[in-house]
Amino acid sequence: MKHSFSLAAQCLIFSSLGLAQPPAPAGRGGRGFPPPQPPSYEVRADRTVVFRLRAPDATSVKLNGDFLAAPPPVEGAPPAPAVAEMTKGDDGFWTVTVGPLRPAVYNYTFTVNGVRAIDPTNPMVKLGDRSSESMFEVPADKPAVYDIQPVPHGTVHIDWYQSASLGVPRSMYVYTPPGYEQGKSKLPVLYLLHGSGDTEAGWVSVGRANLILDNLIAAGTAKPMIVVMPYGRPLAAVMLVPSAGRGPQNANDLFADDLLKDVIPNVEKLYRASAKPDDRAIAGLSMGGGQALQIGLAHLDTFHYIGAFSAAARGNPEEAFKDFFADPAAANRKLKLFYIACGKADGLFPGSQALSDALEKHQIKHQFAPSEEGHVWRNWRDYLASFAPQLFR
Amino acid sequence: MKHSFSLAAQCLIFSSLGLAQPPAPAGRGGRGFPPPQPPSYEVRADRTVVFRLRAPDATSVKLNGDFLAAPPPVEGAPPAPAVAEMTKGDDGFWTVTVGPLRPAVYNYTFTVNGVRAIDPTNPMVKLGDRSSESMFEVPADKPAVYDIQPVPHGTVHIDWYQSASLGVPRSMYVYTPPGYEQGKSKLPVLYLLHGSGDTEAGWVSVGRANLILDNLIAAGTAKPMIVVMPYGRPLAAVMLVPSAGRGPQNANDLFADDLLKDVIPNVEKLYRASAKPDDRAIAGLSMGGGQALQIGLAHLDTFHYIGAFSAAARGNPEEAFKDFFADPAAANRKLKLFYIACGKADGLFPGSQALSDALEKHQIKHQFAPSEEGHVWRNWRDYLASFAPQLFR
Repeated sequence: MKHSFSLAAQCLIFSSLGLAQPPAPAGRGGRGFPPPQPPSYEVRADRTVVFRLRAPDATSVKLNGDFLAAPPPVEGAPPAPAVAEMTKGDDGFWTVTVGPLRPAVYNYTFTVNGVRAIDPTNPMVKLGDRSSESMFEVPADKPAVYDIQPVPHGTVHIDWYQSASLGVPRSMYVYTPPGYEQGKSKLPVLYLLHGSGDTEAGWVSVGRANLILDNLIAAGTAKPMIVVMPYGRPLAAVMLVPSAGRGPQNANDLFADDLLKDVIPNVEKLYRASAKPDDRAIAGLSMGGGQALQIGLAHLDTFHYIGAFSAAARGNPEEAFKDFFADPAAANRKLKLFYIACGKADGLFPGSQALSDALEKHQIKHQFAPSEEGHVWRNWRDYLASFAPQLFR
Repeated sequence: MKHSFSLAAQCLIFSSLGLAQPPAPAGRGGRGFPPPQPPSYEVRADRTVVFRLRAPDATSVKLNGDFLAAPPPVEGAPPAPAVAEMTKGDDGFWTVTVGPLRPAVYNYTFTVNGVRAIDPTNPMVKLGDRSSESMFEVPADKPAVYDIQPVPHGTVHIDWYQSASLGVPRSMYVYTPPGYEQGKSKLPVLYLLHGSGDTEAGWVSVGRANLILDNLIAAGTAKPMIVVMPYGRPLAAVMLVPSAGRGPQNANDLFADDLLKDVIPNVEKLYRASAKPDDRAIAGLSMGGGQALQIGLAHLDTFHYIGAFSAAARGNPEEAFKDFFADPAAANRKLKLFYIACGKADGLFPGSQALSDALEKHQIKHQFAPSEEGHVWRNWRDYLASFAPQLFR
């Protein structure tokens, strides 16, 4: 079964229910539906994508998306965002066509007279710590590793725990693999950290980590494992509020306490989670990649697998991780896998390159996997799909 | 501990971490943070709320929210939405002050030159089936039943199942009460259905059903129970896509099959869920209230508790539920609770009133609980908090 989100697929779904086309919507709450509109985006067979926004009263509408070409950099100025101007038609719809794009899940927003807005008619939304974006998928010819497929599915749990370190209740997402409920033995655990723009929901709602693990486990390429996704900000503990995502300067230290003293003990109490370092991995993207390095490299007796995805790692790694680099033998003895991946167009690429170079210099085993593109979510789904099969071997 | 989301509370959180005020944000993905801005909303001590949106290039900005007064109805025209005009300042910020508002969680959006947009800087977003809204809370003097409190917390599970009825994989949210993992006995189950604008996540992410149950169970006013929240649309099965939320005319019949033949058997296989009709309740809001009536009243041997929250019930109930009304004795023998609640300002109120009147006429026991206000989420949190304590007694 193919799970694409194209118009063709929608028509197939309707057809399979015996309907030639979507019928008129039913009434709602006594207030009526808005009239049907053309879809806000359309992925065409050639993988170009048409965007349409109804905005008859706007005088400027732009499309934002990391799949667009960024304007050339200007010396001394911050990088300009990647935007495409949209064109207004006589019907009040603004349109633009982009691509063709490679099969992946993409994020986008509109800017209407200077204000950034998610697509008001697309329910696939990437919720963020500070802002949200709309999402769409360009389907591949066959289902991708992040697509739902007819395989056994694990369960995602949303657990609240009281963080003694931070003095607040917090929530974490925990994936258990298919068959977990029937099993008896302890399972290895991947602690998977989100980026600065996301929340504890991000690896599931945006990254589809649960579907990726389902598919890898079904294919026999990844071992069944628990995946724990905590909230990486030591503030905004209860509910997200505006600006709450901005942490103090020592945010990563506070988060390390939360992870090591609260999250892990809670997970090992609530779940059949192995406490052996050989059965523990820590990985993260961007800010979470920086946290995975900072926490992981300082706790080689806790985690024997480390993954840094487009990690927020700057400066000289030999200084940042002084103790770690002081004992290469211990590193090589303890670490089963030290995986570093980053897009070559990512502003953080030099940090990953410098880390790999320093590891090379000190003859510390690691895997450096530069990829195409920049600081984009579609890379992180791919990195997880490369990293997870190498764990707990 | 008080959990409000006001500026005062944020300052308290920062203070408790030894910071006088939020520090400057750290860098992000090599691209830098946007400069700090004043919060996009501010709940003041007098429970008025100030909204601010930076939009120097916009020529019209409005605030939308169901807490605003709707304009007077115009004969023959559809009801106009409740909006407040915002005023542009020299600094490019548009502002408006509303309220005072009673303590509750509210939804809002902005309209920028005619385009509806969530608040671009507020991470509390109500994701919808067709569109999204931003949320804010006006805190009460003490934590409300929907606020997180220092009590034991249950777990929310996101489970995927293959719907044989619909031929697609679907996901459901399942709440298990605190201590579920350690227990042995079967628990009663509330099947809780969302409204037309929401998804299977709605009762948790918007309605906070999990926190409401945590608090009621901790207070000893509700029995520990499992709460199952399926997706009420028989289409858009895999991921939400634009317009996919619009179902066929027989959507409720298709959903009834999914619920009765797939959801319930799956729940009773995966969880320690009682299969006794005395241990099963079905309730829902709006569209889901209509489904709870349609499915519940036709299956008195499956569910002995029914809740209709602002239910989408129209027309003559004696015709719509002919078989049910044909046997009042069976209804009174089987139903332990038939709860009907609706806001008196709701366009659907006449439907609930007519249902209650028909039940009265046929001498069928029921509880009719009209409330203030209209078709608003804050009513449904309250209804759940009234309904759940009466279940499984």
